[in-house]
Amino acid sequence: MEILKEKIREYGVLVSDNVLKVDSFLNHQLDPEFIVAVGHEFATRFAGDEVTKILTVEASGIAVALTTAMEMKVPCVFAKKNKPSTLQGEVYSSIVHSFTKNETVTISVAASYIDSNDRILIIDDFLAMGAASKGLIEIVGQSGAHLVGVGVVIEKGFQKGGQELRKNGVRVEPLVVIKSLAAGKVEFE
Amino acid sequence: MEILKEKIREYGVLVSDNVLKVDSFLNHQLDPEFIVAVGHEFATRFAGDEVTKILTVEASGIAVALTTAMEMKVPCVFAKKNKPSTLQGEVYSSIVHSFTKNETVTISVAASYIDSNDRILIIDDFLAMGAASKGLIEIVGQSGAHLVGVGVVIEKGFQKGGQELRKNGVRVEPLVVIKSLAAGKVEFE
Repeated sequence: MEILKEKIREYGVLVSDNVLKVDSFLNHQLDPEFIVAVGHEFATRFAGDEVTKILTVEASGIAVALTTAMEMKVPCVFAKKNKPSTLQGEVYSSIVHSFTKNETVTISVAASYIDSNDRILIIDDFLAMGAASKGLIEIVGQSGAHLVGVGVVIEKGFQKGGQELRKNGVRVEPLVVIKSLAAGKVEFE
Repeated sequence: MEILKEKIREYGVLVSDNVLKVDSFLNHQLDPEFIVAVGHEFATRFAGDEVTKILTVEASGIAVALTTAMEMKVPCVFAKKNKPSTLQGEVYSSIVHSFTKNETVTISVAASYIDSNDRILIIDDFLAMGAASKGLIEIVGQSGAHLVGVGVVIEKGFQKGGQELRKNGVRVEPLVVIKSLAAGKVEFE
């Protein structure tokens, strides 16, 4: 996705050899026009897959999951972290470790919002070690729904999450794959 | 907003005399068409106010803040909870107690995304005790920006947040005000 590469080149900030900050347009400040374009791109890539529901996890995934859902005209569910008091009844859950935040959280989805007839598309902002995606896939598994695939805005190709998911037969659609962040330079695949 | 009242009547679940669950369309599962309509309504109410930026707090505020930003063609910033490693440099922050989650968190915004020339519209899903709104207003104050107002999807009129904000001269625009949740019944103002 060319516009995404341009955004990263222009506004991405390298925090270390591992961490690319895209706070100014993707996961702290949102550029609405760009977020809509991202949703359009995911909807195009999964257009023939009869997706019935978008699944993401709070918080950074919500914006791009919503614009994808808008385009595909299906509902969007975001898994909640650390079960709030309003999340009652049967829930699907999974334990996820965030390397960026260095915390382990339980993510949960009310069982009433996914069922075995659903065809689920998982959407997230980043794919690095794949922790969030694996947690969401586990939740899809618990529900008995069909996993259509995983769409991520940015895949860090030098970390093993994407490779592991593909090895397990999961269709992964990154809008851009970063090959390396070494030597203060963003290199795309 | 009539469509919102209909949604609440049809899908709202009363958890207690204080807590209304709107998980099925607003803050766990999102109905994209409805979320777009909410953004349109906020944009209409604040159309003449030269808003330059939408401010919310993760996670439940993001969806409606984004669709408002889309309609107003301005960026949207969501305050982060418990500062992630990527949030560096100068930040504005405030301590917020969530009564729903029964937790106290620090919410933060990178100083680079709000400045004293901004005219900020705060958007959130619920206004009850006003904790999140007050935290965001404190952040706007730290930045020196002008606060245009606070738009909330649902105000619980029987809790004191809205009243306190108005007493302090803040313009509050709820799309619906709930007068009471007593006796297992949702009563609108």
